[in-house]
Amino acid sequence: MSGSTSARGEPSRPPRDGTAPARRGGPARTVRPLPIAVDTMGGDHAPEEVIAGAVDAVREHDVRLVLVGQAPRIRHELDRYGITGQIPIVHADEALDMGEGALASWRKPRSSIAIACHLIKQGRASALVSAGGTAGVVATSRLRLKGQQGVMRPAIAVTLPTRPTPTILLDAGATADVKPEGLVQFAALGTAYAQVLLGIDRPRVGLLTIGEEPGKGNKLAKRAHELLASGNHGIEFAGNVEGHDLLRGGVDVIVTDGFTGNIALKTMEGTIRTAFAEIREAMTSTATARMGALLQRRRMQGLRDRLDPDTYGGGVLLGLNGTVVIAHGASRARAITSACELADRLATGRIVERIREQVSLTRTHRFGRWTHGTGDERNADRPGEPVPEPGDGSDGVTGGVVPDPPPRPAEETGPDGLEPPGGKP
Amino acid sequence: MSGSTSARGEPSRPPRDGTAPARRGGPARTVRPLPIAVDTMGGDHAPEEVIAGAVDAVREHDVRLVLVGQAPRIRHELDRYGITGQIPIVHADEALDMGEGALASWRKPRSSIAIACHLIKQGRASALVSAGGTAGVVATSRLRLKGQQGVMRPAIAVTLPTRPTPTILLDAGATADVKPEGLVQFAALGTAYAQVLLGIDRPRVGLLTIGEEPGKGNKLAKRAHELLASGNHGIEFAGNVEGHDLLRGGVDVIVTDGFTGNIALKTMEGTIRTAFAEIREAMTSTATARMGALLQRRRMQGLRDRLDPDTYGGGVLLGLNGTVVIAHGASRARAITSACELADRLATGRIVERIREQVSLTRTHRFGRWTHGTGDERNADRPGEPVPEPGDGSDGVTGGVVPDPPPRPAEETGPDGLEPPGGKP
Repeated sequence: MSGSTSARGEPSRPPRDGTAPARRGGPARTVRPLPIAVDTMGGDHAPEEVIAGAVDAVREHDVRLVLVGQAPRIRHELDRYGITGQIPIVHADEALDMGEGALASWRKPRSSIAIACHLIKQGRASALVSAGGTAGVVATSRLRLKGQQGVMRPAIAVTLPTRPTPTILLDAGATADVKPEGLVQFAALGTAYAQVLLGIDRPRVGLLTIGEEPGKGNKLAKRAHELLASGNHGIEFAGNVEGHDLLRGGVDVIVTDGFTGNIALKTMEGTIRTAFAEIREAMTSTATARMGALLQRRRMQGLRDRLDPDTYGGGVLLGLNGTVVIAHGASRARAITSACELADRLATGRIVERIREQVSLTRTHRFGRWTHGTGDERNADRPGEPVPEPGDGSDGVTGGVVPDPPPRPAEETGPDGLEPPGGKP
Repeated sequence: MSGSTSARGEPSRPPRDGTAPARRGGPARTVRPLPIAVDTMGGDHAPEEVIAGAVDAVREHDVRLVLVGQAPRIRHELDRYGITGQIPIVHADEALDMGEGALASWRKPRSSIAIACHLIKQGRASALVSAGGTAGVVATSRLRLKGQQGVMRPAIAVTLPTRPTPTILLDAGATADVKPEGLVQFAALGTAYAQVLLGIDRPRVGLLTIGEEPGKGNKLAKRAHELLASGNHGIEFAGNVEGHDLLRGGVDVIVTDGFTGNIALKTMEGTIRTAFAEIREAMTSTATARMGALLQRRRMQGLRDRLDPDTYGGGVLLGLNGTVVIAHGASRARAITSACELADRLATGRIVERIREQVSLTRTHRFGRWTHGTGDERNADRPGEPVPEPGDGSDGVTGGVVPDPPPRPAEETGPDGLEPPGGKP
């Protein structure tokens, strides 16, 4: 970390020629990654718990952040922690409600998530963390960040609490209808993600279906199996996996469409909640059992923490020009801290570039029906319609930036309120 | 039960004119339902545990059965229980292996499942119980029993252990690719099933998808929602449900395609197993925790029994000309007994007729795209191909029937070895 100040003589913000996409973690930036944009307005416990978690991420885990949301409110919260001005703030007027979906991303071009996406596009943030409603976050991110070149559809990757190492499941709900070739791309996305997150060189990828044999499944799964089994796409295909394999840890990555993946994930979460609720009831139903429960409290709490979706939960939207970490709507401070750490780790590991490399391998392979994968259809949902820009329509974010008022000696705020000229003390 | 003998003067076996389908529970038979055919050769613990469970069903629950399988072996087992000759036996030469799928149902026309189906077709059994591999049982039953008139595709219904009343989930894996109109039919199948099994007059039906709002889901779920929400099909549609609602008990029936349903079910089962395994580990990891576990053993065992798939598990194949109860492959005697009771209950409740009535209601409704539902495509998989018959090809089963050797005073075996002339003592 030391020496990073002198190494970066030029202003950290890229020239605003409109062509500067986010290049987080690229060769010129490995020394000091860009900050993570945190949406302080999304989630059931926003902004208090979100900001509390962000403060912990900065203090305890040395993650660089920029907080997006109602600037006065954020400043008020930071005051409580006595670190006003140490974390940059970018103002956003609006928030997406938890229930809002795709339409809101058009209606609210100045939402905190839209502003956070804009920071990524401008190269002023490397990734985005939000505990807002998944539908709204996904729709806004797709609209603002656009799909990565070569990626047909984005996917949400979640981490399942298997032992000894976690298992990545994708897609957990970004793309409900997908083609077999899209599933192959999801396998590539998951491979890149497992490489960065789990540090596995050649992660083993399983296809979620309803039987071990190649011919088992619906039409989508059967064709995807054929494509994956044909090899030569840079994916270590380990065959079919079934629903009861999700928590078994036999593979590193499990690939499925967003409809099936979402239902499987929520089924798992709901089952864990029901099981624990019933166990608690059984453990406290009689005086004898209650005494037993006292003796086990600590172990059970540890187990609950590991399996509780609120702890391990949340997903990462992959395949866009920027990484979006979607924390659980019910996230408390600790979950937000984890999400910020995760975003930082993915940005440092250059996940977007790794995905590009991995997806390009699938395209060198000539599948029989391989006519997709150009990425041209990635914004086909509303072709030709202009995307409303955040801010007043000119520069976008500038109008929303609130420079932190008094520059402090140890950590000076840069002219744009985002990039302190020096490193953290 | 008393007086049934005198009420049925004519021989109980229908005339073999080739036109007599199974009419279990029909007006002429409400007094004494036909026996349930039990496949003694399917399952991990066949035939010992299957026969043990069957014996219990006869002894403790007064269910009438006919055992299908290797006759000498069955007789040997019945000897051990000292009830040789009290349960009719029908010999079958072959068994389907657990891993065998659709092809085996063609290759093995004399398999125990094929013979059991033939008993139903001949009106000599009302339903079939098997713990064999699901793929093989489904394929053989579809081939032998054929789809019910008006039903496009069959579905497997399973019972989820919700409180206070169970929830029916279908399809759990019979039909991986289904049309929206097929999902509406599944809703009708589930409605009939819940009426018979749970005694609910108008069961509430939820559609499994990935969001509560009508527009959430993949194309299939969205269109099925439109059809179900349009009303006028005899189904009490309660809207969308999500994965975490499976164990919540908010609806009586949950409808989905066989791919999604199978993955959701297996995810639930796998999660329950993992949760209990980890809890056991946590509860016995330290001396203190072990002491606590001792105090709770009884309550936890009760909970485990309720949630363990081996206890509540198994499914019912609906939509064919006969009811097929598929017990878990790992079924022990107790699970087989439950399966026999379930089959008896469904036969007594005339499930096949109830389905016919319920499905006909969906067809009176004029959907925009409602071009299916005639049942003509139900055997479209292999059009025109002749179905090999069991036995020597003439009558089918007769060659396989092994009359129980010595007639006993209390319960005499009829001339066909199946229908004792009197009621059970």
